[in-house]
Amino acid sequence: MIPLDVLGKLSRAGDSKILLVVLDGLGGTCGGERNVTELEEAKTPHLDAIAVHSSLGLLEMVAPGITPGSGPGHLSLFGYDPLKYFIGRGVLSAAGVGLEMKAGDIAARINFCTVDSKGVVTDRRAGRIPTETCVSLCEKLNRELKVPGTTVVVKPEREHRAAVLFRGEGLDQRIGDTDPQREGLAPLPAKAASPEAEKAAGIVREFITQAGRILASDKPANMVLLRGFDSPPHLPQFPDVFKLKAACVAVYPMYRGISRLVGMDVAEFEGERIEDEVKCIESIWKNHDFIYLHVKKTDSYGEDGNRAGKVHVIEEFDALLPRLLALKPSVLAVTGDHSTPAALKAHSWHPSPVLLYAEGLCRPDGHKRFTESNCSRGCLGHLSATSLMPLMLAHALRLDKYGA
Amino acid sequence: MIPLDVLGKLSRAGDSKILLVVLDGLGGTCGGERNVTELEEAKTPHLDAIAVHSSLGLLEMVAPGITPGSGPGHLSLFGYDPLKYFIGRGVLSAAGVGLEMKAGDIAARINFCTVDSKGVVTDRRAGRIPTETCVSLCEKLNRELKVPGTTVVVKPEREHRAAVLFRGEGLDQRIGDTDPQREGLAPLPAKAASPEAEKAAGIVREFITQAGRILASDKPANMVLLRGFDSPPHLPQFPDVFKLKAACVAVYPMYRGISRLVGMDVAEFEGERIEDEVKCIESIWKNHDFIYLHVKKTDSYGEDGNRAGKVHVIEEFDALLPRLLALKPSVLAVTGDHSTPAALKAHSWHPSPVLLYAEGLCRPDGHKRFTESNCSRGCLGHLSATSLMPLMLAHALRLDKYGA
Repeated sequence: MIPLDVLGKLSRAGDSKILLVVLDGLGGTCGGERNVTELEEAKTPHLDAIAVHSSLGLLEMVAPGITPGSGPGHLSLFGYDPLKYFIGRGVLSAAGVGLEMKAGDIAARINFCTVDSKGVVTDRRAGRIPTETCVSLCEKLNRELKVPGTTVVVKPEREHRAAVLFRGEGLDQRIGDTDPQREGLAPLPAKAASPEAEKAAGIVREFITQAGRILASDKPANMVLLRGFDSPPHLPQFPDVFKLKAACVAVYPMYRGISRLVGMDVAEFEGERIEDEVKCIESIWKNHDFIYLHVKKTDSYGEDGNRAGKVHVIEEFDALLPRLLALKPSVLAVTGDHSTPAALKAHSWHPSPVLLYAEGLCRPDGHKRFTESNCSRGCLGHLSATSLMPLMLAHALRLDKYGA
Repeated sequence: MIPLDVLGKLSRAGDSKILLVVLDGLGGTCGGERNVTELEEAKTPHLDAIAVHSSLGLLEMVAPGITPGSGPGHLSLFGYDPLKYFIGRGVLSAAGVGLEMKAGDIAARINFCTVDSKGVVTDRRAGRIPTETCVSLCEKLNRELKVPGTTVVVKPEREHRAAVLFRGEGLDQRIGDTDPQREGLAPLPAKAASPEAEKAAGIVREFITQAGRILASDKPANMVLLRGFDSPPHLPQFPDVFKLKAACVAVYPMYRGISRLVGMDVAEFEGERIEDEVKCIESIWKNHDFIYLHVKKTDSYGEDGNRAGKVHVIEEFDALLPRLLALKPSVLAVTGDHSTPAALKAHSWHPSPVLLYAEGLCRPDGHKRFTESNCSRGCLGHLSATSLMPLMLAHALRLDKYGA
């Protein structure tokens, strides 16, 4: 791939507008009565209508055979080499619950757990307490915790899971997990893996001591285990690198969080349907020249193994496509951040189908539908997902020539 | 890509002959009545006849989305990683006007400009003086300039543009531009960006002082601005790396210059038509085993937005193809150094169609025509243009096995 700094030097501002649609987990595998993928099964008259004028291809998110998490999948789509740039689990958890992070903050994943009277872990997941319990435990911690000189915020995820953020001077994230990884052992003390992290490790130990005291009567969830300490990575900022006024339109906190980490504006809007997202795009269209739309449910249904549900979300998006086309984006790309075949009920390594539409500028394939099999014969070929940003910029006439 | 030194070790001499035809800016985008590319529109019976026996593919010159200049495009075709090897603007300008450069020479781009009585630039382009004026100003400078211990040669380009070459002992190219980039300012003094470049910067300052004196009465072009100081890059020499006796057959100085920089012989011949080039190839065929033919006008018409003109040049080349085939090259490759769609009137990022013909050795696609869309489904796939050299060498049976 072309290095990000070289690409940044070639990028120039302009009037063109780019719309990147990420249908989360879009790609699938064959199944159902007709033995086709979810995308092939879906009735998509509007995508079909532009497919014939578009360039199709298959995006390799990380490398062949590698199943990407949402972090690497999105970084790759945003032009960052996912093997070079990495968002750690703690930071992704924090982003996932909507904790806004700054450089120097530390985040970690929390498990509420059960300890016995000797402090030995008897259940690492505290019997998978209901999410509402988790919410009230987090509220209690936030109310009663007091670590001098440090802001600590705990935010619930689901069931026994939460995220915690530490903000203060001179904090270093190189701290070992406190989760002993099996029952019958006491939680590990938070240890600095590097001398620079002694201060932060001390703060984490103080946090754990106080949490144990505050939660003492809250059996089964009477203790916390922490893992995945991390700070936000130093990511070159998307708007600076690409000279784009960029916005994220997403319902789920994790995708909003990743977008915030790369420096995009994160749009606020009411509602959780795709239509609500489209309405938001219509309202912010004038003020941005790059909009990233994230549609979550394709992935959610895929993870549930609900093939029909995934097909339906693709059709729901297709029905709204004319409203997006009415905005006349100079460049429209539709793809996924990874595949989530309903048959696998999980993310998969299959490359993501991509459609790139830029009237008069893309070489059309002539394929009559946007499907995995047509994409595998598309004129974009099989390419790294990190190539999508330069391709979108090129078709938006926002890249200078390389060399004389 | 396979590193050049590894490839060099595998390369062996032989009796086979390779012909690389570069139709400059060959690739296009769809347009015209039939909504096809220039190559698709052209009537190319002779290319069609060999296409069916050839392997087709699409060459990515630098990286997806990146529009290459002619320098990177050609380096890539010649097997050099264009992100590693770079020919600077000054050297390319010098090559472009036919100034032969050696290692240690410095070249820069000159703008003739207008300065007022206080030495302030009032017109950075001296009213775009006619090329004839530029020619006579260059002659005057070459006649009257005298910089002790240094050979200085000025050569006209077009209108107010020229190139200058400095040859002497111990010259370092790290010198800042003297062009202030806007009117109302005095030219910047030539400053060494590194201590090693102090000597060269002094010579450039002396050149500028003398030029100002010599041109004093030549208003509007009474001063020079210099930019893009550069030395020829240290390019591994093509004939050594690939064990090929290589020749360039090109009309335009820039392509002859690039070929000279990589160590090819540059053929001299009369005339500027493709037919004149073919005649030259016929005359030097015996004495070379790699010939690079450059056809310029496909690009020129593309840059002018003259679709029909570009189509015609492709047809003109096609009509001459039988004479090239009559020479019985072991391997024939036809491609471009970048795309120049007439619709864009400029170089573009679209990958270059390539046809590789080696009787009995290439896997034929069975495609009936050499077109972008067939190339996108060709058996060579989408590949880096740096892969063309190893592919041509392989089909010419000039590469040893890698490993036992």
